[in-house]
Amino acid sequence: MQERTLGELAEHVGGQVRGDPSLVIRAAATLERAKEGDISFLMNRRYVRQLQTTKASAVIVAQAVDAPVALLVAEDPYYAFTQVMVLLHGHRTHKETGISPQASISDTAVLGAGCHVHPFATIADNVQIGERCIVYPGVYIGEGATLGDDCIIYPSVTIYERCRIGRRVIINAGSAIAVDGFGYATHEGVHHKIPQIGGVVIKDDVEIGSCCGIERGTLDDTIIGQGSKLGDLVTIGHGTKIGPHCLIVAQAGVAGSATLGHHCVVGGQAGIVGHITIGDNVTIGGRAGVINSVPDGQTMLGAPAIEADEARRAYAMLPHLPQMRQDIRELQNRLRKIAALLEGGSDKLEDR
Amino acid sequence: MQERTLGELAEHVGGQVRGDPSLVIRAAATLERAKEGDISFLMNRRYVRQLQTTKASAVIVAQAVDAPVALLVAEDPYYAFTQVMVLLHGHRTHKETGISPQASISDTAVLGAGCHVHPFATIADNVQIGERCIVYPGVYIGEGATLGDDCIIYPSVTIYERCRIGRRVIINAGSAIAVDGFGYATHEGVHHKIPQIGGVVIKDDVEIGSCCGIERGTLDDTIIGQGSKLGDLVTIGHGTKIGPHCLIVAQAGVAGSATLGHHCVVGGQAGIVGHITIGDNVTIGGRAGVINSVPDGQTMLGAPAIEADEARRAYAMLPHLPQMRQDIRELQNRLRKIAALLEGGSDKLEDR
Amino acid sequence: MQERTLGELAEHVGGQVRGDPSLVIRAAATLERAKEGDISFLMNRRYVRQLQTTKASAVIVAQAVDAPVALLVAEDPYYAFTQVMVLLHGHRTHKETGISPQASISDTAVLGAGCHVHPFATIADNVQIGERCIVYPGVYIGEGATLGDDCIIYPSVTIYERCRIGRRVIINAGSAIAVDGFGYATHEGVHHKIPQIGGVVIKDDVEIGSCCGIERGTLDDTIIGQGSKLGDLVTIGHGTKIGPHCLIVAQAGVAGSATLGHHCVVGGQAGIVGHITIGDNVTIGGRAGVINSVPDGQTMLGAPAIEADEARRAYAMLPHLPQMRQDIRELQNRLRKIAALLEGGSDKLEDR
Repeated sequence: MQERTLGELAEHVGGQVRGDPSLVIRAAATLERAKEGDISFLMNRRYVRQLQTTKASAVIVAQAVDAPVALLVAEDPYYAFTQVMVLLHGHRTHKETGISPQASISDTAVLGAGCHVHPFATIADNVQIGERCIVYPGVYIGEGATLGDDCIIYPSVTIYERCRIGRRVIINAGSAIAVDGFGYATHEGVHHKIPQIGGVVIKDDVEIGSCCGIERGTLDDTIIGQGSKLGDLVTIGHGTKIGPHCLIVAQAGVAGSATLGHHCVVGGQAGIVGHITIGDNVTIGGRAGVINSVPDGQTMLGAPAIEADEARRAYAMLPHLPQMRQDIRELQNRLRKIAALLEGGSDKLEDR
Repeated sequence: MQERTLGELAEHVGGQVRGDPSLVIRAAATLERAKEGDISFLMNRRYVRQLQTTKASAVIVAQAVDAPVALLVAEDPYYAFTQVMVLLHGHRTHKETGISPQASISDTAVLGAGCHVHPFATIADNVQIGERCIVYPGVYIGEGATLGDDCIIYPSVTIYERCRIGRRVIINAGSAIAVDGFGYATHEGVHHKIPQIGGVVIKDDVEIGSCCGIERGTLDDTIIGQGSKLGDLVTIGHGTKIGPHCLIVAQAGVAGSATLGHHCVVGGQAGIVGHITIGDNVTIGGRAGVINSVPDGQTMLGAPAIEADEARRAYAMLPHLPQMRQDIRELQNRLRKIAALLEGGSDKLEDR
Repeated sequence: MQERTLGELAEHVGGQVRGDPSLVIRAAATLERAKEGDISFLMNRRYVRQLQTTKASAVIVAQAVDAPVALLVAEDPYYAFTQVMVLLHGHRTHKETGISPQASISDTAVLGAGCHVHPFATIADNVQIGERCIVYPGVYIGEGATLGDDCIIYPSVTIYERCRIGRRVIINAGSAIAVDGFGYATHEGVHHKIPQIGGVVIKDDVEIGSCCGIERGTLDDTIIGQGSKLGDLVTIGHGTKIGPHCLIVAQAGVAGSATLGHHCVVGGQAGIVGHITIGDNVTIGGRAGVINSVPDGQTMLGAPAIEADEARRAYAMLPHLPQMRQDIRELQNRLRKIAALLEGGSDKLEDR
C-alpha cells in the first residue's frame, strides 16, 4: 500500500484538484465506508448526495460540484479511480517461489526466466512457457501447450494439450481450457465421439474466470480474442471465435461455431446458439437467448432475444396478458350483442 | 450404521409410535424401495396410498392414518426423518490422516489441534486454521486466509488469499472462493483490470456446492451469511451480501453489489442483477430473472421476474397468444363491417 | 496421423467413390479451410455451393452432385466423416506414465493391469479400478469407489466415495461426481443437512464434460445411463435417473428425483425441475424450463416449456404484444363510439 498526495494522484490520472492538493491519500474506498485518508469516487449522479456525508478525504468526480470534500475532477472517473487503485493498492502480488521441486515438470518442457511453478503443478512434454509466468498448485498443462510471457494460472486449472495462450493471460481457479468439444455422431442410436483435433487459441491480455469450460475445436481452433474478459462459469463451444475486447459475464454460454465481433458484451447467464454471427459492439442482455445472427451495434434482450427497445416494450406487456385476454373476450361478447341489435346485419357479422 | 428400536427413534424425534415400539430399525429408505428393517417417511399426501404397499417396517408421518405398517407420528416429518437418518447413518466420516508429509504447508501457517491435511494440499503463508478441520487433496488455501473450527474443504477447492471462513463451513469439490470480481474499467476500448481489494467472508455453518465461483469484493467484502447453503455451480458477484439462512439452488447466480436478506430461497438457474436489494424471506423461482429490488416476503417468478401470482397468470397466457392475436384481427374485421353497415357512422369510427 | 486413399476410406465407411479412388487423403478439414490432401464433408445442403470452391481433395456427401472435387457418397455423411476422422487422426493418445510414485494410492486400492496414474492423483481406501484406466494429475477418487476398464479421468476431477463408474467412461477436468445432494430439512429457520446416503452410478460409455456437478442421492442412487453424454458445467440433482443415450448440452441442469428416458436431448442452459418424468426420445430446447412431465417423443421449447410447435407460434407473438394491446384499446374505443351511436343500445352494451 502506497501513500500519495491528492495532487500526485491528480497528476497521475490527468485530472484537476478542487481542494487541498497536499491531502494525504492512503487507500480507496466506497463513499459509504470511506474514512479519513481514503479516496472514493462518484460513479452515478444518483449518489451525489453522498458527497455531503462521506468521510472520504477526496472524491473522484466527472464534474465539479459544491461539496464539503476535496474533489479530483477527471473525464472518466471510473478509469481514473482504477488508475488510483492500481497506484495505491497495486494488483495481487505473488510469492516468488521459483520452480518447486514438488512440481512435476517434463524434461522436454521449456520455461522462460523468472517463472514460478508451485508444488503439485504438472507440466507435460514439450510445453513452452514464456518469462515470468506463475503456475499455481494443482495446475495441469498438457503436452505441447504454449504460454506467452507474464501469464498467471491459478490453482486447479487444466489446460489440455496443444492449447496456445498469449501474453499476460490470467486463468482463474478450476477452469478447463481446450476440453474436447461436445461432438458426437449419432448412428443407430449410439453417440460416437468425434475426435476434436482443433485447438484453442487465447490471445494476449485475456482473463478467464473460475470454473469455465472452453472447448477445443472439432477441426478449426476456438479463439478468444485479445483483451477479452470472461467471468466465472462461462462456457465457450468448440470452434467459436470471440473477437477482441469482449466482456462475457458469469454463467453465459456461447455454443459452438459461433462468431462474435469485437467489443461485444454478453450479459450474465445469456446464451448464444451455435453457427451464428454476432457483429461488432453488440450488447446481449443478461439471461438473453440469442438464436439468430445480430448486426453490428445492436442491443438484444430477452429469450428469444429481440432488439432491446422492442424487447423492453414487449416483455413489459407480460403482466397485462390476462387482462388483455379478458378484454378480448368482452369485446367479443359486446360485438355479439351489437350484431344481434343490428337486425339483418348479424348474418354478415357472425360469418366466422 | 446404528440399529435402534422404533420407540427409541420416536423418543429421539419427540414423536408418537402407532404400532410396535420394539420394532428394530436399521436404515432409512424411500417408501418404494424400503424393505424390512427400514424406516421411511411420507413427505406428501399424494403418496399416501404407498403406505398400503410399502415394505418398510415403519413410516414417519405428520398425522396418524390407517395403514398396515407401524407409524411414527411427528409434527415435522421431514425434519424427524433427517434426525433419524443422522442417528442411523450419520454424516460422512473422514479418514484420520493427520497432516500428510505430502502436503505443502507454509511454516507460518497455524493449524489447530485435530486437523487432517491430505496429500497435495497447499496451505500458504500466514493461513490460520481452527481445530478439527479437514483439508482434502488438491485444496489451495491462499495467504492469510482464516478458517474456523470443524471446516471440511473437499478436493481441488481454491480459497484465494485473505478469505475469512467461519466454523463448520463445508466447501465442495472444485469451488473457487474469493476469486477476483469481474471488474474492469473500459477506457478507449481497452478493459483495464480493477484490483479487487475486498475479501470474502463466509459465516458459520455455510455449505457451498461443487464448482461454485464466489467473487471477492472490489472494495468491500462479499459476505455469505450464517447457515446459508449454496448448491452446485452457483456464482456470487463481487461485494454481494447474502443474508443468513438463505438457500441458493444449483446454477443460480447473484451479480455484484446485491443484497439479500435472511431466509431467502433462490431457485435453480435463477439470476439476480447487481446493485439491488432483496428483502427477507423472499422466494425467487427457478430460472427467474430478477431485475428490480424485492420487498420482504414476496415470491417472484419468470424472466423478467414478477410477483408469483401475477406471473403464473401471465405466463399461462403464452400459449394463447396466437389465438389472441387472431381474435383481435377478427374483431377488427367485424368492427369494420359493422362500421360499414352503420351508414354515416363509419367516418367517426374509422378515425384511426 | 495416418495416410489413406479415398478408395480405402470409402471401403472403411461403406460408401461409394465418385472420382479417383487412388487420391491420397491425409487429414480432415472444413470445406472452407481444407487444402490438398484433406477430406471434408457437406453437412447441410445450404453449403452445397462451397463444393465448387473448396480446395479439399475429396468431400463426403449424402448424394452425388456435380462438383469439381472427388466425392465419397455415404448414407450418413456425418457418421462417415467421424469414422474417417478416427481413422486418420485417432482419438487423443495418452502418455504411458505407469503408476507415478508421486501419486498417493491406498494400500487397499486395487488397480487393474495397464493403468496409468499421474503424479498428485489420490486413490483412497478400497477403491477398485479396472484395466487400462488413466487417472490424470490432481484427481481424487474417494473410498470404495469403483471404475470399470478403460476409463479416462482428466485432471482435478473429484469422485466422492462409493461412486460406481462403468467401462470406457470419460470424465473431463474439474467435475465433481457424487457430491452431496442439496438436501436440508428446515426446522425453526435453520437448515439441517440431510446425510446423502445414496450413491452415483455411471454406466458404460458415458462422457461427462468439464466442471459438472453430479449429486449423489439422498436415499437412492443417481444414475447416468449407458452411452449418455453430458456437456460442460451440467448439474444433475440427487436421485435423478438419466436414461441411456441421452445428450445433455452445456450448462443444462436437471433437478433432483427426476427421471429421463432414453435418447433424450436436453439443450444448453435448459432446466428440468425435480420429481417429474421425461419420456423417451424427448427433445428439450436450449434454455427451456421444463416444469411438468413430458410424454415420449415430444419436443419442448421455452420457459415455461410448452410443446415446440405451440411454443414457436407463442413466442413469435412476443414482439407483437405492444401492438396487440394498442389494438385492443382501439377496439374498445371504437366499440364505445358504436354503442353511443346505437341509441338505446348503449345501456346493454356498456354493461361491464
